[in-house]
Amino acid sequence: MTTGKDNLDLDAIYRPIAAEMRRFEQGFSECLRPAGAFVGELVAHATSAAGKRLRPALLFLSGRAVGEIMEAHVRFALAVEAIHAATLVHDDVLDEASLRRSRPTMNVLWGNEASVLFGDYLFTHAFRIASSAGERRALEIIAEAAVEVCEGELLQIAERGNLQLPEERYREIVAKKTAVLCESACRLGAALAGAAPEMEKALAGYGRGVGMAFQIVDDCLDLIGDERETGKSLGTDLQKGKYTLPIIHFLRADAKAAGLVARAAGDGSHLGELRNALIRSGSMEYAFSAAREHIGDAKASIAAVKAQEIRAALEKLADYVIARRK
Amino acid sequence: MTTGKDNLDLDAIYRPIAAEMRRFEQGFSECLRPAGAFVGELVAHATSAAGKRLRPALLFLSGRAVGEIMEAHVRFALAVEAIHAATLVHDDVLDEASLRRSRPTMNVLWGNEASVLFGDYLFTHAFRIASSAGERRALEIIAEAAVEVCEGELLQIAERGNLQLPEERYREIVAKKTAVLCESACRLGAALAGAAPEMEKALAGYGRGVGMAFQIVDDCLDLIGDERETGKSLGTDLQKGKYTLPIIHFLRADAKAAGLVARAAGDGSHLGELRNALIRSGSMEYAFSAAREHIGDAKASIAAVKAQEIRAALEKLADYVIARRK
Repeated sequence: MTTGKDNLDLDAIYRPIAAEMRRFEQGFSECLRPAGAFVGELVAHATSAAGKRLRPALLFLSGRAVGEIMEAHVRFALAVEAIHAATLVHDDVLDEASLRRSRPTMNVLWGNEASVLFGDYLFTHAFRIASSAGERRALEIIAEAAVEVCEGELLQIAERGNLQLPEERYREIVAKKTAVLCESACRLGAALAGAAPEMEKALAGYGRGVGMAFQIVDDCLDLIGDERETGKSLGTDLQKGKYTLPIIHFLRADAKAAGLVARAAGDGSHLGELRNALIRSGSMEYAFSAAREHIGDAKASIAAVKAQEIRAALEKLADYVIARRK
Repeated sequence: MTTGKDNLDLDAIYRPIAAEMRRFEQGFSECLRPAGAFVGELVAHATSAAGKRLRPALLFLSGRAVGEIMEAHVRFALAVEAIHAATLVHDDVLDEASLRRSRPTMNVLWGNEASVLFGDYLFTHAFRIASSAGERRALEIIAEAAVEVCEGELLQIAERGNLQLPEERYREIVAKKTAVLCESACRLGAALAGAAPEMEKALAGYGRGVGMAFQIVDDCLDLIGDERETGKSLGTDLQKGKYTLPIIHFLRADAKAAGLVARAAGDGSHLGELRNALIRSGSMEYAFSAAREHIGDAKASIAAVKAQEIRAALEKLADYVIARRK
């Protein structure tokens, strides 16, 4: 794992696709074509704090790993990010989160009703943008991924409050709600650049590994992160009865864990105690090691990528996913 | 306007497309492919109380007005209904509605979080079903319609509580949130059957008129309907500050109207008083007459449909939209 400052800097990692990322940013607010002043405010809020743009970057890097970036790449990058943005807006409503990307969430600023509808607006725009590209197979890939994201979110709700949640079930939720969209971003990038089936599979495998690791680390940061660094509300998983990998491991390893988890979930003042216990018990390390394993798989998957600069960027991006503090 | 019992019976009106409607019903629960037991329960709830299936019927009748029904008609009927179902689930969350199709709403049975996510599940399934049909133009039509539905819902939220809401703005909201999807259902039915541009335009115009009238009547029923007949929570528009056509007319016609509207919105016990005032002032009749005008336009639009049985069914369906009590 590399930890040098340069490797943690997304701008540096995205350098080989800087032009594509600029096209993406320009297109993102344009393609959401606001209808009237009110929707315009919501679109401006949704597009102004940029976020990591991980999925568009995965798509462009995978395209460049194979060949040329086409207009269709940009359109599908916009559609993938719009799907992701829709799920974030709805997640913040469901989690009653107040902070995202260091700013008040949409639900805080405009209320739950406008936020639910704006999430729908983003979903349907994703559909419209993807439809207009005229790439049938790519369309089917992104549509299937969007369905799986929603299935993952529903599975998570179904398992809420389940202190016996098996690790396998947790991994299934993470795969559907996060890894599938990252995998699809890579698959789309490769397919639209005319990749051979082997190479498409390799890049899709990379995306899946990065997506799994990304979510596992996200779940860890929700427990031990620093709100000033992550820029979003923390501790919401526990409050909402969503037990993630460190908690699942802790519950399995320590007979007294259930009591402490319940106390911390019910009253935030016990969260510090739980954090210490998760670190002392090795449960946090267990989760990070699971994430590192996925990153190892991801890197191994792209060994056959010939474009050196692009393979290096993909490797650095994989390391970033583990090392990031936000 | 016909009012005989037969004309009010949707089964009778749908008789020429009975086989298509059966294919639709069978396909609807199948295509929502539940992932696991929990989602299975939600899908079963969403597909078991059938509703009017107005949009699939519009699509099939428009197809039959032109030619043959193809597999693509069934797929787009499923996609259009899934989009409609998604908006109903989210509307019930936003309206805090407790009753729909004479049963408890999803938000009552499974809570707001599962309902928001299940609405997303329906939206993304619509996208998947439509994508797999391989009809690019049809896909663009339905994608654009879905975007406009969301724009209409957001416009409505933006205008909430505006006692000066102009009638034109109300009509714009109705057009986007309801008429566009009905118009698209007709356009899709015609286009997929190979309609000439003139005929496609005529049927789309019919759908738009029916959709406008349907929503205006829906808004009237929310004020003067009977919950035992409509099978859904009433009075929610007023409580949520959504001023509809009878209210807009009443506010314009009577200087004392604003006070009564505010009292009825704040406290349901004044609703009876408001109902009487809306009827006595002619405001309710004004709204119904606007709906009848749209139905007149709709019928005029399909004068060139040669298939007599189908044209008769379309005319009866238009009458049903006005005469219905649920």
